[in-house]
This record gives sequence, C-alpha cells and structure tokens, in this order.
Amino acid sequence: MGANRKKISVIGSGFTGATTAFLLAQKELGDVVLVDIPNMENPTKGKALDMAESAPVQGFDAKIIGTSNYEDTADSDIVIITAGIARKPGMSRDDLVTTNAKIMKTVAKDIVKYSPNTTIIVLTNPVDAMTYTVFKESGLPKERVIGQSGVLDTARFRAFIAEELNISVKDITGFVLGGHGDDMVPLIRYSYAGGIPLEALISKERLDEIVNRTRTGGGEIVNLLGNGSAYYAPAASLTVMAEAILKNQRRILPSIAYLEGEYGYSDIYLGVPTVLGEKGIEKIIELELTAAEKTALDKSAKSVESVLKVLE
Amino acid sequence: MGANRKKISVIGSGFTGATTAFLLAQKELGDVVLVDIPNMENPTKGKALDMAESAPVQGFDAKIIGTSNYEDTADSDIVIITAGIARKPGMSRDDLVTTNAKIMKTVAKDIVKYSPNTTIIVLTNPVDAMTYTVFKESGLPKERVIGQSGVLDTARFRAFIAEELNISVKDITGFVLGGHGDDMVPLIRYSYAGGIPLEALISKERLDEIVNRTRTGGGEIVNLLGNGSAYYAPAASLTVMAEAILKNQRRILPSIAYLEGEYGYSDIYLGVPTVLGEKGIEKIIELELTAAEKTALDKSAKSVESVLKVLE
Amino acid sequence: MGANRKKISVIGSGFTGATTAFLLAQKELGDVVLVDIPNMENPTKGKALDMAESAPVQGFDAKIIGTSNYEDTADSDIVIITAGIARKPGMSRDDLVTTNAKIMKTVAKDIVKYSPNTTIIVLTNPVDAMTYTVFKESGLPKERVIGQSGVLDTARFRAFIAEELNISVKDITGFVLGGHGDDMVPLIRYSYAGGIPLEALISKERLDEIVNRTRTGGGEIVNLLGNGSAYYAPAASLTVMAEAILKNQRRILPSIAYLEGEYGYSDIYLGVPTVLGEKGIEKIIELELTAAEKTALDKSAKSVESVLKVLE
Amino acid sequence: MGANRKKISVIGSGFTGATTAFLLAQKELGDVVLVDIPNMENPTKGKALDMAESAPVQGFDAKIIGTSNYEDTADSDIVIITAGIARKPGMSRDDLVTTNAKIMKTVAKDIVKYSPNTTIIVLTNPVDAMTYTVFKESGLPKERVIGQSGVLDTARFRAFIAEELNISVKDITGFVLGGHGDDMVPLIRYSYAGGIPLEALISKERLDEIVNRTRTGGGEIVNLLGNGSAYYAPAASLTVMAEAILKNQRRILPSIAYLEGEYGYSDIYLGVPTVLGEKGIEKIIELELTAAEKTALDKSAKSVESVLKVLE
Repeated sequence: MGANRKKISVIGSGFTGATTAFLLAQKELGDVVLVDIPNMENPTKGKALDMAESAPVQGFDAKIIGTSNYEDTADSDIVIITAGIARKPGMSRDDLVTTNAKIMKTVAKDIVKYSPNTTIIVLTNPVDAMTYTVFKESGLPKERVIGQSGVLDTARFRAFIAEELNISVKDITGFVLGGHGDDMVPLIRYSYAGGIPLEALISKERLDEIVNRTRTGGGEIVNLLGNGSAYYAPAASLTVMAEAILKNQRRILPSIAYLEGEYGYSDIYLGVPTVLGEKGIEKIIELELTAAEKTALDKSAKSVESVLKVLE
Repeated sequence: MGANRKKISVIGSGFTGATTAFLLAQKELGDVVLVDIPNMENPTKGKALDMAESAPVQGFDAKIIGTSNYEDTADSDIVIITAGIARKPGMSRDDLVTTNAKIMKTVAKDIVKYSPNTTIIVLTNPVDAMTYTVFKESGLPKERVIGQSGVLDTARFRAFIAEELNISVKDITGFVLGGHGDDMVPLIRYSYAGGIPLEALISKERLDEIVNRTRTGGGEIVNLLGNGSAYYAPAASLTVMAEAILKNQRRILPSIAYLEGEYGYSDIYLGVPTVLGEKGIEKIIELELTAAEKTALDKSAKSVESVLKVLE
Repeated sequence: MGANRKKISVIGSGFTGATTAFLLAQKELGDVVLVDIPNMENPTKGKALDMAESAPVQGFDAKIIGTSNYEDTADSDIVIITAGIARKPGMSRDDLVTTNAKIMKTVAKDIVKYSPNTTIIVLTNPVDAMTYTVFKESGLPKERVIGQSGVLDTARFRAFIAEELNISVKDITGFVLGGHGDDMVPLIRYSYAGGIPLEALISKERLDEIVNRTRTGGGEIVNLLGNGSAYYAPAASLTVMAEAILKNQRRILPSIAYLEGEYGYSDIYLGVPTVLGEKGIEKIIELELTAAEKTALDKSAKSVESVLKVLE
Repeated sequence: MGANRKKISVIGSGFTGATTAFLLAQKELGDVVLVDIPNMENPTKGKALDMAESAPVQGFDAKIIGTSNYEDTADSDIVIITAGIARKPGMSRDDLVTTNAKIMKTVAKDIVKYSPNTTIIVLTNPVDAMTYTVFKESGLPKERVIGQSGVLDTARFRAFIAEELNISVKDITGFVLGGHGDDMVPLIRYSYAGGIPLEALISKERLDEIVNRTRTGGGEIVNLLGNGSAYYAPAASLTVMAEAILKNQRRILPSIAYLEGEYGYSDIYLGVPTVLGEKGIEKIIELELTAAEKTALDKSAKSVESVLKVLE
C-alpha cells in the first residue's frame, strides 16, 4: 500500500506459508500476499481473511490477501517460497526432487514476471537444490536468491541448549554450515551460552546427543505430529531473514548461498554464514575450518551435488 | 517456572488452541501447557516443541509443553478451553450441544482438580451455554468463568470497517452485546473511526451490509476454508482477554458473563461489556439500551436459554 | 542507511528532541539525525552516542548521530522541529513569537535545502503560528507541513480519564479541535471509555475539571518541574505521528493543518482531525459542529490569527 | 496495582532514574514508583506525571508516581538505586565515596523498612563499593543485592563493534569481568560477531583501541555533554537486569556480585558472569582465566578493596 509500505509475497499457503504470512504482518514488515494454486484459492483467501480479522486485536496495520493470481504479487520487495510437496512414504528422493523442481521452475518464472527486481527466499526441500533451481530459472543475481536452513537448525539447537542449561534462549547462540539434517555441519566451537563456549558447560557426550537431536529435529516433529511437519519454527526463521533484508539490518545469519569459489566450491548453493541486508546476501563470511569440519562440509557439498545431478 | 512466571493452560490443541498457545508464549505472558486427549498426545507434544523451537528466533522466554495429563496444568493462573467438536453436516444443533457439554464437564472437573483458584476462558461453541456448563461444573466464582465471543465479533467488524474506510485498524472501535453470530446485537452508535461515529462516515445501507457480514463472519471463513474454521482471529481474541487478566490491565472488553439481574436477566451467560482485570470479570457495565436493542438482546437471551434447556 | 531504511531528522536536541530521537530509534522507524546549533554540537553528539550505546541492550538497529551540520540531514523522509526557546518570566508573548519565528525560518530553509521532498512535523510553540511560518518558508506542499498539539492534548486527557475510571489507557479515546491550552476545543461527545461516551460514566462537573486540567496540562508539568517543561508525552506524540506517516498507517489523528475553506477558515493552521499517511496529511475530516463548538473554534482561530499578525 | 502487577521503585529521579522508570513502564514490567528527596518531590512528581501522560500514546498500562515518601515503595518487587552525587572537579575520590556511602546507608534502610524481601540493583558509583554498602546495611541475602556495570560496559563495546563491522547490534556479544572503567577486564576471546570470535574479524590494534574506548566510555559521554553524564544506556542496562529478574528469564548477564570464594575472592563485590532470575543472582558462573586475565582481575579487586577501606 504505497511507497512507504513494503510488499512481501509468500508462495504456498500451507501451515508454514500461512504462519510466515501471519508473522510478517504481525511485525508490520509490510503488506502480505499469500499465494497458492487456483484450486486452493478459497482456502488461501480464508486464511488471509482470518489473519486480517486478527489485526484489530493485535494492533497491526498490514493488508493480507490470498490469491492464486501472480499479478497480485507485482512489485514485491521479497518473495518467500514455501510451495512444494513433502516426501511421502514410498516416494523416492528423486521423485521428490523432480516434482519440487518442476514447481520451483513455474513459481520462479511467475514471480519474476511481476517482480523482476525482487529478492527470493526458498524453504522448499531439498532446499539447496531447490534454491539453485530458482536461481537458474529466475535469472536474478545470486545475492537475491537465498535458501533457508541454518536459521532453523540453529534455532532448534539453541532451544535444546537453553533447556539443557535452564538459561534464557536470548543468551544461547549456535553456528552451522552445510545442508539440512544429516548434512548439517555444526560448529560447536562457535556456539555459546552468554558468550561462554558450550564445551565448557556441557559434556562432550551430551553435546553430541544434542547435535544429533538437532540433525533429526525435523524428523522428530514429523514423528510426533504423525501427519505433517514443523511450521512454527520454520516460519519464524523465514521471518527473521526477511526482516533483516527489509530493514537492512545487516545481520549475520546462516544462509544457503550461491558459491563462486568461497570455501573452495563453485556453482553450488550451500549453507554458509552471510550478512543479510537490503541487497540480499551482502557478504559471504569465510572462516578457517578444521580438517574435520572441511571434511564434513565436503560431504555436505557432495550430497547437494548428487541431488543437482538428478535435476540435469 | 517459578513465582515470577505466570502459567497458562490451553485445553484443546487444534488450530485455535495451538495458535493461542503460540501467541501467549510470544508475548511472554507466561509458561504454556497445551493439553489434549491421550490419543492426541503426540501431535500436541509436536506442536509445543515446534513452538518452543521458534523461541530463540523470536526472542521470547516461555516454556511450552504438550501433554494429555492434567497434572501438568497444576496451579495455572488461567485456563483457556478450546476443546470440543465442530458442527458437522447432518449433525443436529442438539447433538452438538450435548456432545460439547459432556466434554466441558470432564474438562472443567480436570481443571479445578489441579487449579482450584484459576480463571477459565471458554471458546467452545455454543459458547454461552458451554461457559454456563463450565461455571456450574467447576464451582468457581462467576467472575472467574468467562466466555469469549464479543472480542472476536468486534475484531471482525473493525477489520471490515478499516478496509471500508481505508483507515488504520488502530483507530476503529466496535461494540456488541448478546451472543455470537445471528444472536449478536451490534451497537453501531457506540462504534467509531477515530472517535467519529460510524454513522457519520458510512451510509446506513453499507453499515447494515457490514453488520451482516460480521454476523456471518465465522461462516464466511468456514466456507472459504472448505474444511475447518477460523483460528487466527479467535486465538488473538483469547490472548487479549488473558493478557488483560494476567497483567491486571482493567480493560473494557465484551465478555460472556454470568448475569444476576444485570440487563434484567438472571442465571444466564450472555455477552455484555465488562472490565477484565486480575479478579477476572471485575465489573459488568450496564448501559441504557434503546427499545430495539433491548428487543434484540431479549432474542439473544432466549436463544441461549433454548440451548440451556437442551442440557437439562 | 540505504533505501530500506527511513531517515528522520530531529531539529533541537533538548529534552523533547532527544527523547523523540530515542523513541524513533527504539521502534526501528529509521536512522535518526539529531541536530542542534554549532555551540551545542558536542552535547548533541553526546546524547546521540549515549542512545546508540543503548541499542545493543534494547535490541534495536538504527544509526543515531548528533550534528550541527544540515548536510547530515540530506534526504530525510521526515523532519521533526522541536527547536526554539521557551517563554521565560518577564518575556512578552510577542517576543516569544518573534524569536521562535526567526528560528523557524532558518531551520525551514536549512531543512528543504537538503531534503526538498520531506515532510515536516512542528512542535515549537506557539505551534499553530510556527507551523504556518515553516509552511510559508519551506515552500513544501501544505499536506507535508504538520503541527503537533492534539495528540498530546488527548494523551493527557486520556491519562486523566483512565486514572479517574481506573481503566486501561488502551480503551480511552479523546477528541480535540483547535489550538493548544486555553484554545483547545474538547469534543467530549466524541470521547469514550471502551466505546461508551464519557458523559455516561463521569459527572458533568468532574468532566469539566478534567477538561480544565487538560487545558492547563503543560503548565501543570512546568510548575512541578520548576525548571523546564514536559518532554516524555510530547516526544511520544511526535513519534506516533511520524510512525503513521513512515508506515503509511492512515491513522486518524488530530493535526495542526493548513485550512483552505475547511471548517470555514482559510490561510490558517488550526487543529483538526486528519488522516496521516505516507503523503503526510492525506485528508482533513470535516465534522458537523454544535453552535458552542463552532464558537469555541472561532475563538481558537482568532487567537491563532492574532499571533500571525505579530509576525507580519 | 494488585497481585498481578509487579512493583518497581527507582531511587533517584535524575536523568538515569527517570529514564529507567520510563523504560520499565514502557515495557509493562510493573507499576513504577520514582523516589527522590523531599526538596525534589515536585520535579519527581512532574516527571512521573509526564511519563504517565505518554502512556495512552505509547499504549502501555503502568502506574507511575513520583514521591519522596518511602511508604509509597512498600512491597516493591525490585528497587533500583540511582541516587548519589557525581564526582565534581576538585572533589577527591574519597569524598565521593564517603558522601555516596552515606546516601546508600539511608536509602538501604528506608527501602528494607517497607520492602523487607525485595531485590536491589545498584548503579551509584563507585558501584562495587556502593553495592557492598547497600548489602551490609540492608541485611538482605547476597543474591538479592546486585550491582550494575558489566551490562553497560558490554553495551558500549557491542555498539562500537557493530559500528566498526557495520553489522546489526543483535549479533554482537561482549564479555567483561571486574569493575567499571579502568578496572574493567574485557574477555575479548569471549566476544563475537555472529558467533565468530572478534579476533578473526578485527585487527589486534583496532580491538585494543575499541577496548580502550569502552573503558573510557563514560568519560567520553561526560566530555561531550559538558554537563552531566550518560543516562540512556545506563537506564537500558538497569532495565534489562530488572526484566530478567521480574520475568525469571534466567539470563546470563554480568553483575556485580558478592563473592565468597568464587574466583578466589571473599567478602567483596566484583563484576562476574551471573545468572539472573527470580531469586536475583541465581548463580555465579566461574570461568578458567588466563594468567593475564587473573592478573587484571586481581588489580580490579584491589581497586575495590582500596575503596572499601575508605569506608571503614
């Protein structure tokens, strides 16, 4: 609504997309367009309307609309992609990749048609490959196509550590490289409670358990829910990345970024520490890695490459 | 967690219950216990865990747990009841009433067993009768058993008016008496934009349309969603009522309150303007009504009584 | 800092200016430039630095600088003028007007030199005349030069009513027209608690007392402080007006606006209800006035005109 | 106001005390009593009233009163002491110590007379000795008498680092031990940007300069202001400590704590990492120090002891 309001589109009106739209509006980060496919248009409108009806009580000013028409996303400052299918029992990983890549291609084209200068944040899994697909298809500069995984992984890690130590979540930090889940490369030596390295506060064994729980954090929620996957923490993670960009906060957050030589990799999207500001990824921070960390990151990169091969 | 943290239990881990738990925690209003029946225990735990994992990113400190064991709700400062079934096609209103009343009785007993001095807010429909049932079953004083409907109804009304006038939701107020939906008695003369009576800004015809849309606001969302009902605005409404009590804000909010002579009714729960503070309903505000308003409120009261008769 | 950050300059680094800068930064409404005359440059820098050092603890991202160089204000989205002298014992009103008008002229010229398309909010007293002076000198369109007085007057009124009724300030609204202080025209019939007209809740005598206290609210603080005048509530009032514009909230707030026929006045700045959005004053709302209100507003207008005459 | 509202008293209504009261109320952390000596009663009332009048605009519910009567502080959950004189040109350090210690003794007695179970946070300089004096005089348990200096020191350090790196303040952490100013013992190895040790991002020389600037951060503001000292960042620091206690957040924050053997010291108040929760200092965290750090901390402790000797 006018030049003084940012515009954010969220593609996919499932739980994560809807919750993301809700958090963005709640923070008055801009007006929000929630988008889904035509035969989901009514539920999408219903969710958007329900959120809009919460605005007077919550005291936020933001338009929220639901649509299946990409014209409504025109001139978005940020577009967040949560669309895609989840892996179902019996579905091969390759089927998942192929199906979601198709969705990414359509979505990317539709987005840039109406918002040729936007910044895109991708959540859809497998996120490294899907971000790569969106990058290639959209034609946007690399710093404007970003994948989410590290913010969520560290959020889970921090929650577990806060509970373990009975300390405020505000004072726990975590650090990861590489991909999601099994491919996650935690840098425990860069993870702290109140600035104190965790290794000084928690035993090696217990830390390993917590790292493992983090690695399988998505699966833990899937198993508990029985039907569906996590959406509150993923939505909060997407929101904090969007906020950093929309407010040009220049935050240091882990992003899935396109590498051109950084950390020794090229033409690949991989989780690395970045500075997020109004230009999108304003900087990739390169760290000295230990041999073990480098090995783990290599494994993570190989895993991404094997997925990318499926797509060729 | 300790005397300096409030404790809030939310009964029913469906969309409304879960979203309410999320909003309460997000605002650091206290630690939250999300409760559902034993065979929903795992999904309930999953939602609670997902929310807890969003805390580091959102920056709030609140424990959130999922459970099916009412012992975990012990010493709650507030309990919010969202449990119950929704009316399904082919189900008679009486069946709905009877089923949900049974649920209310069990829930009320379980709550007071562990929190004998708590305050209860009821959302379950038909909310006037369900609040009455919880009041009778719990044995709590009348000011500590409160139903929600007017905050949500006015939220919807305010959202529609804000859109109509293209004005901030912060500056629109609305006012209703009586029950939900068809039984709602809107007091347009007490509804304003920036303090200006709406009648001076919007035509009578258009206002009537907006009132009608508000009356059927729940149904509008149900129709759009196709499967399920509104939860964002209901959750926000429950949260603002809980906040007023937990922070002793003494807010003037419409509540479903037990009447003993007020407005000429007795032994009935009906929507009236109240002051919400640490004692629960600290005051029922009695207004002079026009003849038309009184007639409409009578109709609303009759409707509640006819439901209560089903329960006898 | 970049296109995604708004820029707000505050002219005058006294208590009100400094507190306004602090509130703007705290809300992350943009980067803030605090400006004062050259021989106040160091204290201005000191206050800005102190505020900036509070940012890590408060968790806001906003640059705050102190300066005496208007070049630093270049391309401000909003400029707030708090500069000027306060009336001292023995000083005639005309002396005050003449001195502050001189300051306004210099300031206005310096502002538009570097921010030719900005929006200016004026606090300096006598505010109606000073806003007029800034309007004439700046050459900005009328909707982009706005005076503050009604937000503060209603804030005081609301605080007094909230205390009187022991009700949340969130549920009290007030409404004024005309000038500050003695010239204030309160519209009690448009002032409410929870939507209920105050006349139904408070006796006529008590309401008159509260109106009188509001009229002399500035003086009450001056008398208590002994040395200096109010700044917390004025700063909060300026901030909410700036926020409405910066976020295009289209809020209904009382502003001192340039009238061209509205309410029967022309070529004068007077307090009227307005819609504040990204264009500044997006609309002046005209209300039917009672004869008594119109008489009071005439008196208020005459008072402004008599000040303007001093300036010719 | 009632059991559901916390009560916080702030002793000393100067800039720091007043700003602290404002921040506490703004965050709805409780009702606030601002206290000063009888001949400052009116200005204290004036500031409190001005803040209260900002509440409707800022949307917070909190009573704020000014008083010189300690009866009004009865049953405070937290008392914050900002009272005391600042060192003036020509005044010896010992004179400052003796004068402020006398003030602390009176204040401490007055506080516990009406709030025998409260928690006290001390800001008055020299803060280590003044906290010791309040501890001895009040008779409160050691975990309930806490001094502030490290939160402010790290806030300044973090602000300087954020500016140096052009990174969000949200992602910078700092860590100090020991006393204020010259006695501050920075632990750079525990200070990070986005979890990355600062030593990897900033040269040793530049870091030394920033540490030195932090050490003299109070003086930098004093020199700029010309008349008076910092209050925004000190007030924000006091507020975050109070919030951690009032909300039982169990935050890891540096506090001036009474040591009984920790770090090898006894019967002394010294800056150490602590866990702040509803019991006050819930834990002192002991870290392995390098020889250089231990030497610096010894020097800091000696400095505190030499001040304490003045008081005997």
